[in-house]
Amino acid sequence: MLSSGQIKYVSALRVKKYREKSGQFIAEGEKLVGDLISGSFSIAAVYGSPSWILANGPLLIKKGIPFFETLPQEMERISTLSTPSPVLAVVEIPEPPPFTPEPEPGSLHPEGCFYLALDNIRDPGNLGTIIRIADWFGITTVFCSEQTVELYNPKVIQATMGSIARVRVIYCDLVKVLSGLSLKIPVFGAFLEGDNLFKQDIPVEAVILIGNESHGISPELEPFITRKLVIPSFGPSETGKAESLNASVATAIICAEFRRASYQRQ
Amino acid sequence: MLSSGQIKYVSALRVKKYREKSGQFIAEGEKLVGDLISGSFSIAAVYGSPSWILANGPLLIKKGIPFFETLPQEMERISTLSTPSPVLAVVEIPEPPPFTPEPEPGSLHPEGCFYLALDNIRDPGNLGTIIRIADWFGITTVFCSEQTVELYNPKVIQATMGSIARVRVIYCDLVKVLSGLSLKIPVFGAFLEGDNLFKQDIPVEAVILIGNESHGISPELEPFITRKLVIPSFGPSETGKAESLNASVATAIICAEFRRASYQRQ
Repeated sequence: MLSSGQIKYVSALRVKKYREKSGQFIAEGEKLVGDLISGSFSIAAVYGSPSWILANGPLLIKKGIPFFETLPQEMERISTLSTPSPVLAVVEIPEPPPFTPEPEPGSLHPEGCFYLALDNIRDPGNLGTIIRIADWFGITTVFCSEQTVELYNPKVIQATMGSIARVRVIYCDLVKVLSGLSLKIPVFGAFLEGDNLFKQDIPVEAVILIGNESHGISPELEPFITRKLVIPSFGPSETGKAESLNASVATAIICAEFRRASYQRQ
Repeated sequence: MLSSGQIKYVSALRVKKYREKSGQFIAEGEKLVGDLISGSFSIAAVYGSPSWILANGPLLIKKGIPFFETLPQEMERISTLSTPSPVLAVVEIPEPPPFTPEPEPGSLHPEGCFYLALDNIRDPGNLGTIIRIADWFGITTVFCSEQTVELYNPKVIQATMGSIARVRVIYCDLVKVLSGLSLKIPVFGAFLEGDNLFKQDIPVEAVILIGNESHGISPELEPFITRKLVIPSFGPSETGKAESLNASVATAIICAEFRRASYQRQ
Protein backbone atom coordinates (compact mmCIF):
# COMPACT_ATOMS: atom_id res chain seq x y z
CA MET A 1 0.00 0.00 0.00
CA LEU A 2 1.32 3.41 -0.93
CA SER A 3 0.62 6.42 1.24
CA SER A 4 -1.38 9.25 -0.27
CA GLY A 5 1.76 11.37 0.10
CA GLN A 6 3.71 8.94 -2.11
CA ILE A 7 0.98 8.92 -4.74
CA LYS A 8 0.87 12.71 -4.73
CA TYR A 9 4.65 13.02 -4.92
CA VAL A 10 5.10 10.62 -7.83
CA SER A 11 2.15 12.07 -9.75
CA ALA A 12 3.60 15.57 -9.39
CA LEU A 13 6.70 14.49 -11.31
CA ARG A 14 4.71 14.59 -14.56
CA VAL A 15 5.03 18.35 -14.28
CA LYS A 16 8.28 20.03 -15.30
CA LYS A 17 8.18 22.44 -12.36
CA TYR A 18 8.17 19.58 -9.86
CA ARG A 19 10.86 17.70 -11.74
CA GLU A 20 13.07 20.76 -11.52
CA LYS A 21 12.28 21.30 -7.84
CA SER A 22 12.92 17.69 -6.83
CA GLY A 23 15.66 16.88 -9.33
CA GLN A 24 13.85 13.64 -10.16
CA PHE A 25 11.97 12.12 -13.07
CA ILE A 26 9.82 9.06 -13.68
CA ALA A 27 10.41 6.08 -15.93
CA GLU A 28 8.06 3.18 -16.57
CA GLY A 29 8.23 -0.28 -18.04
CA GLU A 30 10.35 -3.35 -17.40
CA LYS A 31 12.86 -2.72 -20.19
CA LEU A 32 13.35 0.98 -19.45
CA VAL A 33 13.56 0.63 -15.67
CA GLY A 34 15.87 -2.37 -16.10
CA ASP A 35 18.21 -0.35 -18.34
CA LEU A 36 18.23 2.54 -15.87
CA ILE A 37 19.00 0.23 -12.94
CA SER A 38 21.89 -1.37 -14.80
CA GLY A 39 23.10 2.00 -16.13
CA SER A 40 24.72 4.77 -14.15
CA PHE A 41 21.49 6.39 -12.99
CA SER A 42 20.72 6.76 -9.33
CA ILE A 43 17.27 5.34 -8.56
CA ALA A 44 15.39 7.01 -5.72
CA ALA A 45 12.57 4.46 -5.51
CA VAL A 46 10.90 1.69 -7.47
CA TYR A 47 7.18 0.98 -7.45
CA GLY A 48 6.44 -2.52 -8.67
CA SER A 49 3.62 -5.02 -8.90
CA PRO A 50 3.88 -7.87 -6.37
CA SER A 51 5.12 -10.28 -9.03
CA TRP A 52 7.68 -7.80 -10.41
CA ILE A 53 8.98 -7.21 -6.88
CA LEU A 54 9.16 -10.95 -6.29
CA ALA A 55 11.34 -11.37 -9.39
CA ASN A 56 13.51 -8.28 -8.94
CA GLY A 57 13.62 -7.75 -5.16
CA PRO A 58 17.02 -9.44 -4.70
CA LEU A 59 18.65 -7.14 -7.29
CA LEU A 60 17.06 -4.05 -5.73
CA ILE A 61 18.25 -5.07 -2.27
CA LYS A 62 21.74 -5.71 -3.59
CA LYS A 63 21.81 -2.27 -5.20
CA GLY A 64 20.30 -0.59 -2.15
CA ILE A 65 17.29 0.72 -4.08
CA PRO A 66 14.15 1.32 -1.98
CA PHE A 67 11.09 -0.41 -3.41
CA PHE A 68 7.38 -0.47 -2.75
CA GLU A 69 4.87 -3.12 -3.64
CA THR A 70 2.19 -1.38 -5.65
CA LEU A 71 -1.30 -2.60 -6.37
CA PRO A 72 -2.79 -2.21 -9.87
CA GLN A 73 -5.21 0.51 -8.73
CA GLU A 74 -2.32 2.43 -7.15
CA MET A 75 -0.19 2.01 -10.28
CA GLU A 76 -3.01 3.48 -12.32
CA ARG A 77 -2.88 6.60 -10.17
CA ILE A 78 0.87 7.18 -10.44
CA SER A 79 1.39 6.01 -14.02
CA THR A 80 1.57 8.34 -17.01
CA LEU A 81 0.68 5.50 -19.38
CA SER A 82 -2.78 4.60 -20.58
CA THR A 83 -1.90 0.96 -19.91
CA PRO A 84 0.32 1.01 -16.81
CA SER A 85 3.30 -1.33 -16.77
CA PRO A 86 4.27 -3.48 -13.76
CA VAL A 87 7.01 -1.06 -12.69
CA LEU A 88 7.65 2.65 -12.29
CA ALA A 89 10.90 4.17 -11.06
CA VAL A 90 11.62 7.59 -9.60
CA VAL A 91 15.09 8.46 -10.85
CA GLU A 92 17.53 11.23 -9.93
CA ILE A 93 18.22 13.68 -12.75
CA PRO A 94 21.98 13.34 -13.24
CA GLU A 95 24.40 16.24 -13.50
CA PRO A 96 24.45 17.47 -17.10
CA PRO A 97 27.26 15.74 -19.00
CA PRO A 98 30.40 17.84 -19.40
CA PHE A 99 29.96 20.47 -22.06
CA THR A 100 32.43 19.64 -24.78
CA PRO A 101 31.94 21.96 -27.70
CA GLU A 102 34.76 20.29 -29.60
CA PRO A 103 34.88 16.57 -28.89
CA GLU A 104 37.76 14.66 -30.36
CA PRO A 105 36.61 13.49 -33.75
CA GLY A 106 37.37 9.89 -34.47
CA SER A 107 37.85 9.02 -30.84
CA LEU A 108 34.67 7.11 -30.34
CA HIS A 109 34.74 4.00 -32.45
CA PRO A 110 36.38 2.56 -35.51
CA GLU A 111 33.27 2.60 -37.71
CA GLY A 112 33.35 6.38 -37.80
CA CYS A 113 32.17 9.10 -35.55
CA PHE A 114 28.89 10.86 -36.09
CA TYR A 115 27.18 13.41 -33.94
CA LEU A 116 23.56 14.40 -33.97
CA ALA A 117 22.57 18.02 -33.43
CA LEU A 118 18.89 18.79 -32.85
CA ASP A 119 17.66 22.29 -33.50
CA ASN A 120 14.51 22.88 -31.44
CA ILE A 121 12.86 19.48 -31.68
CA ARG A 122 9.60 20.13 -29.82
CA ASP A 123 7.77 16.83 -29.87
CA PRO A 124 8.70 14.59 -26.92
CA GLY A 125 8.07 11.43 -28.93
CA ASN A 126 10.46 12.62 -31.63
CA LEU A 127 13.24 13.43 -29.16
CA GLY A 128 12.92 10.08 -27.39
CA THR A 129 12.79 8.18 -30.69
CA ILE A 130 15.86 10.05 -31.97
CA ILE A 131 17.81 9.08 -28.83
CA ARG A 132 16.81 5.45 -29.46
CA ILE A 133 17.98 5.76 -33.09
CA ALA A 134 21.29 7.27 -31.95
CA ASP A 135 21.79 4.34 -29.58
CA TRP A 136 21.06 1.81 -32.34
CA PHE A 137 23.51 3.40 -34.74
CA GLY A 138 26.28 3.90 -32.20
CA ILE A 139 25.98 7.68 -32.06
CA THR A 140 27.00 8.41 -28.50
CA THR A 141 26.48 12.17 -28.34
CA VAL A 142 23.38 14.18 -29.21
CA PHE A 143 23.61 17.97 -29.00
CA CYS A 144 20.28 19.72 -28.40
CA SER A 145 19.55 23.41 -28.74
CA GLU A 146 18.29 24.97 -25.54
CA GLN A 147 14.76 25.22 -27.01
CA THR A 148 14.57 21.48 -27.57
CA VAL A 149 11.87 19.78 -25.47
CA GLU A 150 13.02 18.85 -21.96
CA LEU A 151 14.84 15.51 -21.78
CA TYR A 152 13.08 14.38 -18.60
CA ASN A 153 9.53 14.84 -19.91
CA PRO A 154 7.93 11.41 -19.31
CA LYS A 155 7.03 11.07 -23.00
CA VAL A 156 10.67 11.58 -24.00
CA ILE A 157 11.89 9.09 -21.41
CA GLN A 158 9.35 6.45 -22.48
CA ALA A 159 10.14 6.88 -26.18
CA THR A 160 13.87 6.29 -25.59
CA MET A 161 12.99 2.72 -24.50
CA GLY A 162 16.05 2.68 -22.26
CA SER A 163 18.48 4.35 -24.66
CA ILE A 164 18.56 7.35 -22.32
CA ALA A 165 20.87 5.17 -20.20
CA ARG A 166 23.46 4.98 -22.99
CA VAL A 167 23.37 8.17 -25.07
CA ARG A 168 24.94 11.43 -23.87
CA VAL A 169 22.46 14.25 -24.47
CA ILE A 170 23.93 17.74 -24.17
CA TYR A 171 21.76 20.86 -24.14
CA CYS A 172 23.85 23.72 -25.43
CA ASP A 173 24.12 26.75 -27.66
CA LEU A 174 24.24 25.08 -31.09
CA VAL A 175 25.82 28.15 -32.69
CA LYS A 176 28.80 27.73 -30.37
CA VAL A 177 29.04 23.97 -30.78
CA LEU A 178 28.66 23.95 -34.57
CA SER A 179 31.02 26.87 -35.09
CA GLY A 180 33.66 24.77 -33.31
CA LEU A 181 32.85 21.37 -34.83
CA SER A 182 32.44 22.69 -38.37
CA LEU A 183 36.11 23.69 -38.44
CA LYS A 184 37.08 20.04 -38.11
CA ILE A 185 34.35 17.91 -39.65
CA PRO A 186 31.55 18.46 -42.15
CA VAL A 187 28.07 19.39 -40.98
CA PHE A 188 25.16 17.90 -42.96
CA GLY A 189 21.77 19.52 -42.54
CA ALA A 190 18.44 17.82 -43.32
CA PHE A 191 16.41 20.04 -45.65
CA LEU A 192 13.50 19.70 -48.03
CA GLU A 193 15.69 20.98 -50.85
CA GLY A 194 19.32 20.12 -51.29
CA ASP A 195 21.59 17.36 -52.52
CA ASN A 196 20.29 13.82 -52.81
CA LEU A 197 21.23 11.89 -49.65
CA PHE A 198 21.73 8.75 -51.71
CA LYS A 199 24.31 10.29 -54.03
CA GLN A 200 26.81 11.51 -51.45
CA ASP A 201 30.33 10.50 -50.57
CA ILE A 202 29.76 9.93 -46.88
CA PRO A 203 32.75 10.87 -44.71
CA VAL A 204 33.80 8.87 -41.67
CA GLU A 205 33.16 11.80 -39.35
CA ALA A 206 30.31 14.25 -39.52
CA VAL A 207 27.61 16.13 -37.71
CA ILE A 208 24.01 15.44 -38.76
CA LEU A 209 21.83 18.48 -38.05
CA ILE A 210 18.05 18.05 -37.77
CA GLY A 211 15.67 21.01 -37.64
CA ASN A 212 12.42 21.77 -35.91
CA GLU A 213 9.28 19.85 -36.97
CA SER A 214 7.59 22.94 -38.44
CA HIS A 215 10.31 25.48 -39.09
CA GLY A 216 13.29 23.36 -40.06
CA ILE A 217 16.84 24.49 -39.33
CA SER A 218 17.31 27.98 -37.85
CA PRO A 219 18.85 30.56 -40.18
CA GLU A 220 21.63 31.31 -37.69
CA LEU A 221 22.93 27.75 -38.06
CA GLU A 222 23.07 27.79 -41.87
CA PRO A 223 26.59 29.32 -42.05
CA PHE A 224 27.99 26.20 -40.39
CA ILE A 225 26.39 23.74 -42.79
CA THR A 226 28.76 22.07 -45.22
CA ARG A 227 26.02 20.47 -47.27
CA LYS A 228 22.24 20.49 -47.39
CA LEU A 229 20.81 17.01 -47.79
CA VAL A 230 17.41 15.95 -48.98
CA ILE A 231 15.82 12.53 -48.67
CA PRO A 232 14.37 12.12 -52.17
CA SER A 233 10.74 11.19 -52.53
CA PHE A 234 9.61 8.76 -55.19
CA GLY A 235 6.74 8.04 -57.48
CA PRO A 236 4.36 10.21 -59.43
CA SER A 237 3.77 13.64 -57.96
CA GLU A 238 0.85 14.78 -60.15
CA THR A 239 -1.56 13.70 -57.45
CA GLY A 240 0.28 15.49 -54.67
CA LYS A 241 2.70 13.95 -52.22
CA ALA A 242 3.72 13.91 -48.60
CA GLU A 243 5.31 17.31 -48.00
CA SER A 244 7.85 16.04 -45.56
CA LEU A 245 8.83 13.19 -43.32
CA ASN A 246 8.52 13.15 -39.56
CA ALA A 247 11.70 14.50 -37.88
CA SER A 248 12.61 11.20 -36.22
CA VAL A 249 11.95 9.27 -39.43
CA ALA A 250 14.23 11.64 -41.38
CA THR A 251 16.91 11.26 -38.70
CA ALA A 252 16.67 7.47 -38.94
CA ILE A 253 17.04 7.43 -42.72
CA ILE A 254 20.06 9.73 -42.67
CA CYS A 255 21.77 7.86 -39.82
CA ALA A 256 21.17 4.55 -41.60
CA GLU A 257 22.66 5.89 -44.84
CA PHE A 258 25.73 7.26 -43.04
CA ARG A 259 26.27 3.89 -41.38
CA ARG A 260 25.61 1.95 -44.58
CA ALA A 261 28.50 3.81 -46.16
CA SER A 262 30.85 2.09 -43.73
CA TYR A 263 30.04 -1.24 -45.42
CA GLN A 264 31.01 0.18 -48.77
CA ARG A 265 34.37 1.25 -47.39
CA GLN A 266 35.06 -2.20 -45.98
CA MET B 1 -21.55 29.67 -32.64
CA LEU B 2 -21.93 25.91 -32.66
CA SER B 3 -24.96 24.25 -31.11
CA SER B 4 -24.40 21.95 -28.16
CA GLY B 5 -25.66 19.14 -30.40
CA GLN B 6 -22.88 19.83 -32.91
CA ILE B 7 -20.25 19.88 -30.17
CA LYS B 8 -21.55 16.62 -28.77
CA TYR B 9 -21.71 14.99 -32.21
CA VAL B 10 -18.18 15.92 -33.24
CA SER B 11 -16.71 15.01 -29.85
CA ALA B 12 -18.33 11.57 -30.02
CA LEU B 13 -16.34 10.79 -33.19
CA ARG B 14 -13.22 10.27 -31.07
CA VAL B 15 -14.78 6.98 -30.08
CA LYS B 16 -14.59 4.03 -32.48
CA LYS B 17 -18.16 2.96 -31.74
CA TYR B 18 -19.52 6.32 -32.89
CA ARG B 19 -17.27 6.40 -35.95
CA GLU B 20 -18.64 3.03 -36.98
CA LYS B 21 -22.21 4.10 -36.29
CA SER B 22 -21.98 7.37 -38.21
CA GLY B 23 -19.50 6.28 -40.87
CA GLN B 24 -17.52 9.47 -40.27
CA PHE B 25 -14.16 10.45 -38.80
CA ILE B 26 -12.42 13.65 -37.80
CA ALA B 27 -9.31 15.27 -39.23
CA GLU B 28 -7.60 18.41 -37.97
CA GLY B 29 -5.03 20.88 -39.21
CA GLU B 30 -4.71 23.04 -42.30
CA LYS B 31 -2.45 20.68 -44.23
CA LEU B 32 -4.44 17.54 -43.48
CA VAL B 33 -7.87 19.06 -44.07
CA GLY B 34 -6.57 20.74 -47.24
CA ASP B 35 -5.30 17.39 -48.56
CA LEU B 36 -8.61 15.71 -47.78
CA ILE B 37 -10.59 18.45 -49.49
CA SER B 38 -8.48 18.22 -52.63
CA GLY B 39 -8.44 14.40 -52.50
CA SER B 40 -11.34 12.12 -53.19
CA PHE B 41 -12.81 12.21 -49.69
CA SER B 42 -16.33 13.40 -49.11
CA ILE B 43 -16.36 16.08 -46.42
CA ALA B 44 -19.50 16.24 -44.27
CA ALA B 45 -18.64 19.51 -42.53
CA VAL B 46 -15.76 21.84 -41.78
CA TYR B 47 -15.33 23.76 -38.53
CA GLY B 48 -12.92 26.65 -38.96
CA SER B 49 -11.69 29.73 -37.15
CA PRO B 50 -13.09 32.99 -38.56
CA SER B 51 -9.83 33.76 -40.37
CA TRP B 52 -9.55 30.24 -41.80
CA ILE B 53 -13.12 30.46 -43.07
CA LEU B 54 -12.39 33.89 -44.56
CA ALA B 55 -9.47 32.44 -46.54
CA ASN B 56 -11.09 29.14 -47.54
CA GLY B 57 -14.80 29.95 -47.72
CA PRO B 58 -14.86 30.38 -51.52
CA LEU B 59 -13.31 26.93 -52.09
CA LEU B 60 -15.75 25.32 -49.63
CA ILE B 61 -18.71 26.98 -51.35
CA LYS B 62 -17.44 25.88 -54.75
CA LYS B 63 -17.13 22.31 -53.51
CA GLY B 64 -20.49 22.42 -51.72
CA ILE B 65 -18.96 21.64 -48.33
CA PRO B 66 -20.96 22.91 -45.33
CA PHE B 67 -18.83 25.00 -42.95
CA PHE B 68 -19.23 26.54 -39.53
CA GLU B 69 -17.33 29.44 -38.05
CA THR B 70 -15.91 28.14 -34.80
CA LEU B 71 -14.62 30.19 -31.88
CA PRO B 72 -11.40 29.15 -30.12
CA GLN B 73 -13.25 28.02 -26.99
CA GLU B 74 -15.56 25.88 -29.15
CA MET B 75 -12.62 24.44 -31.07
CA GLU B 76 -11.05 23.43 -27.78
CA ARG B 77 -14.14 21.40 -26.98
CA ILE B 78 -14.32 19.51 -30.27
CA SER B 79 -10.57 19.14 -30.92
CA THR B 80 -8.60 15.99 -30.07
CA LEU B 81 -5.34 17.98 -30.06
CA SER B 82 -3.70 19.54 -27.03
CA THR B 83 -3.13 22.64 -29.16
CA PRO B 84 -6.17 22.89 -31.44
CA SER B 85 -5.58 23.93 -35.03
CA PRO B 86 -7.71 26.49 -36.89
CA VAL B 87 -9.70 23.81 -38.71
CA LEU B 88 -11.39 20.48 -38.07
CA ALA B 89 -13.25 18.45 -40.68
CA VAL B 90 -15.83 15.71 -40.29
CA VAL B 91 -15.17 13.33 -43.14
CA GLU B 92 -17.11 10.38 -44.55
CA ILE B 93 -15.35 7.04 -44.16
CA PRO B 94 -14.99 5.87 -47.78
CA GLU B 95 -15.87 2.42 -49.03
CA PRO B 96 -12.92 0.10 -48.42
CA PRO B 97 -10.69 0.01 -51.52
CA PRO B 98 -11.23 -3.05 -53.71
CA PHE B 99 -9.61 -6.11 -52.21
CA THR B 100 -6.91 -7.14 -54.63
CA PRO B 101 -4.92 -9.98 -53.19
CA GLU B 102 -2.78 -10.15 -56.28
CA PRO B 103 -2.17 -6.70 -57.71
CA GLU B 104 -0.30 -6.52 -60.95
CA PRO B 105 3.36 -6.27 -60.03
CA GLY B 106 5.25 -3.62 -61.94
CA SER B 107 2.13 -1.79 -62.92
CA LEU B 108 2.45 1.15 -60.62
CA HIS B 109 5.50 3.15 -61.58
CA PRO B 110 8.77 2.80 -63.39
CA GLU B 111 11.00 3.08 -60.32
CA GLY B 112 9.78 -0.27 -59.10
CA CYS B 113 6.80 -1.50 -57.21
CA PHE B 114 6.89 -2.09 -53.50
CA TYR B 115 4.08 -3.03 -51.18
CA LEU B 116 3.98 -2.66 -47.44
CA ALA B 117 2.28 -5.30 -45.32
CA LEU B 118 1.68 -4.51 -41.66
CA ASP B 119 1.15 -7.38 -39.26
CA ASN B 120 -0.80 -6.11 -36.23
CA ILE B 121 0.69 -2.64 -35.84
CA ARG B 122 -1.09 -1.45 -32.69
CA ASP B 123 0.19 2.06 -32.09
CA PRO B 124 -1.86 4.68 -33.95
CA GLY B 125 1.16 7.00 -34.30
CA ASN B 126 3.13 4.20 -35.93
CA LEU B 127 0.38 3.38 -38.44
CA GLY B 128 -0.10 7.02 -39.40
CA THR B 129 3.65 7.60 -39.70
CA ILE B 130 4.03 4.47 -41.85
CA ILE B 131 1.32 5.72 -44.23
CA ARG B 132 3.21 9.03 -44.49
CA ILE B 133 6.44 7.12 -45.22
CA ALA B 134 4.66 5.06 -47.89
CA ASP B 135 3.42 8.24 -49.53
CA TRP B 136 6.92 9.78 -49.51
CA PHE B 137 8.49 6.73 -51.10
CA GLY B 138 5.79 6.21 -53.69
CA ILE B 139 4.37 3.05 -52.14
CA THR B 140 0.74 3.27 -53.09
CA THR B 141 -0.69 0.21 -51.35
CA VAL B 142 -0.40 -0.78 -47.69
CA PHE B 143 -1.91 -4.11 -46.63
CA CYS B 144 -2.89 -4.29 -42.95
CA SER B 145 -3.79 -7.38 -40.98
CA GLU B 146 -7.23 -7.21 -39.47
CA GLN B 147 -5.77 -6.72 -35.98
CA THR B 148 -3.95 -3.57 -37.06
CA VAL B 149 -5.16 -0.45 -35.24
CA GLU B 150 -8.21 1.17 -36.86
CA LEU B 151 -7.33 3.52 -39.73
CA TYR B 152 -9.82 6.21 -38.68
CA ASN B 153 -8.55 6.58 -35.12
CA PRO B 154 -7.85 10.34 -34.83
CA LYS B 155 -4.21 9.70 -33.86
CA VAL B 156 -3.67 7.65 -37.02
CA ILE B 157 -5.30 10.28 -39.18
CA GLN B 158 -3.25 13.10 -37.62
CA ALA B 159 0.02 11.21 -37.97
CA THR B 160 -0.54 10.64 -41.69
CA MET B 161 -0.28 14.41 -42.19
CA GLY B 162 -2.53 14.16 -45.21
CA SER B 163 -1.01 11.05 -46.76
CA ILE B 164 -4.23 9.20 -45.97
CA ALA B 165 -5.59 11.03 -49.02
CA ARG B 166 -3.08 9.36 -51.33
CA VAL B 167 -2.22 5.90 -50.01
CA ARG B 168 -4.54 2.92 -50.45
CA VAL B 169 -4.82 1.10 -47.12
CA ILE B 170 -6.37 -2.37 -47.33
CA TYR B 171 -7.36 -4.35 -44.24
CA CYS B 172 -7.24 -8.00 -45.12
CA ASP B 173 -6.20 -11.50 -44.20
CA LEU B 174 -2.42 -11.26 -44.63
CA VAL B 175 -2.07 -15.02 -44.96
CA LYS B 176 -4.28 -14.89 -48.05
CA VAL B 177 -2.60 -11.83 -49.54
CA LEU B 178 0.97 -12.97 -48.92
CA SER B 179 0.31 -16.50 -50.11
CA GLY B 180 -0.77 -14.97 -53.41
CA LEU B 181 1.87 -12.25 -53.72
CA SER B 182 4.76 -14.46 -52.64
CA LEU B 183 4.27 -16.63 -55.74
CA LYS B 184 5.16 -13.65 -57.91
CA ILE B 185 7.50 -11.37 -55.99
CA PRO B 186 9.81 -11.75 -52.98
CA VAL B 187 8.58 -10.95 -49.49
CA PHE B 188 11.12 -9.33 -47.13
CA GLY B 189 10.35 -9.43 -43.42
CA ALA B 190 11.86 -7.08 -40.83
CA PHE B 191 13.40 -9.11 -38.02
CA LEU B 192 15.91 -8.63 -35.23
CA GLU B 193 17.98 -11.46 -36.66
CA GLY B 194 18.49 -12.11 -40.32
CA ASP B 195 20.47 -10.89 -43.31
CA ASN B 196 22.03 -7.45 -43.28
CA LEU B 197 19.68 -5.01 -45.04
CA PHE B 198 22.64 -3.12 -46.44
CA LYS B 199 24.14 -6.14 -48.18
CA GLN B 200 21.16 -7.19 -50.30
CA ASP B 201 20.50 -7.21 -53.98
CA ILE B 202 17.28 -5.27 -53.91
CA PRO B 203 14.73 -6.38 -56.52
CA VAL B 204 12.51 -3.95 -58.40
CA GLU B 205 9.38 -5.51 -56.97
CA ALA B 206 8.86 -6.72 -53.43
CA VAL B 207 6.66 -6.83 -50.38
CA ILE B 208 8.09 -5.35 -47.18
CA LEU B 209 6.50 -7.01 -44.16
CA ILE B 210 6.60 -5.25 -40.78
CA GLY B 211 5.60 -6.97 -37.55
CA ASN B 212 3.89 -5.94 -34.35
CA GLU B 213 5.73 -3.56 -32.00
CA SER B 214 6.13 -6.17 -29.25
CA HIS B 215 5.72 -9.54 -30.90
CA GLY B 216 7.19 -9.05 -34.36
CA ILE B 217 5.90 -11.00 -37.33
CA SER B 218 3.30 -13.71 -36.68
CA PRO B 219 4.53 -17.30 -37.09
CA GLU B 220 1.78 -18.06 -39.60
CA LEU B 221 3.27 -15.51 -42.01
CA GLU B 222 6.80 -16.90 -41.88
CA PRO B 223 6.25 -19.50 -44.63
CA PHE B 224 5.69 -16.68 -47.13
CA ILE B 225 8.89 -14.80 -46.29
CA THR B 226 11.59 -15.00 -48.93
CA ARG B 227 14.23 -13.35 -46.77
CA LYS B 228 14.54 -12.11 -43.20
CA LEU B 229 16.19 -8.71 -43.03
CA VAL B 230 17.86 -7.02 -40.11
CA ILE B 231 18.83 -3.37 -39.80
CA PRO B 232 22.33 -3.71 -38.36
CA SER B 233 23.19 -1.77 -35.23
CA PHE B 234 26.58 -0.15 -34.82
CA GLY B 235 29.12 0.67 -32.20
CA PRO B 236 30.33 -1.07 -29.09
CA SER B 237 27.82 -3.36 -27.46
CA GLU B 238 29.61 -4.12 -24.17
CA THR B 239 27.59 -1.42 -22.48
CA GLY B 240 24.27 -2.69 -23.81
CA LYS B 241 22.38 -1.33 -26.77
CA ALA B 242 18.96 -0.39 -28.00
CA GLU B 243 17.14 -3.71 -28.34
CA SER B 244 15.16 -2.64 -31.34
CA LEU B 245 13.97 0.27 -33.41
CA ASN B 246 10.48 1.69 -33.38
CA ALA B 247 8.28 0.01 -36.03
CA SER B 248 7.79 3.14 -38.11
CA VAL B 249 11.51 3.95 -37.94
CA ALA B 250 12.39 0.45 -39.13
CA THR B 251 9.86 0.77 -41.95
CA ALA B 252 11.40 4.08 -43.01
CA ILE B 253 14.94 2.71 -43.11
CA ILE B 254 13.93 -0.33 -45.16
CA CYS B 255 11.80 1.69 -47.60
CA ALA B 256 14.64 4.18 -48.04
CA GLU B 257 17.14 1.40 -48.75
CA PHE B 258 14.81 -0.24 -51.28
CA ARG B 259 14.37 3.08 -53.05
CA ARG B 260 18.07 3.93 -52.90
CA ALA B 261 18.74 0.76 -54.85
CA SER B 262 16.93 2.29 -57.81
CA TYR B 263 19.72 4.89 -58.09
CA GLN B 264 22.31 2.18 -58.28
CA ARG B 265 20.44 0.57 -61.15
CA GLN B 266 20.27 3.83 -63.08
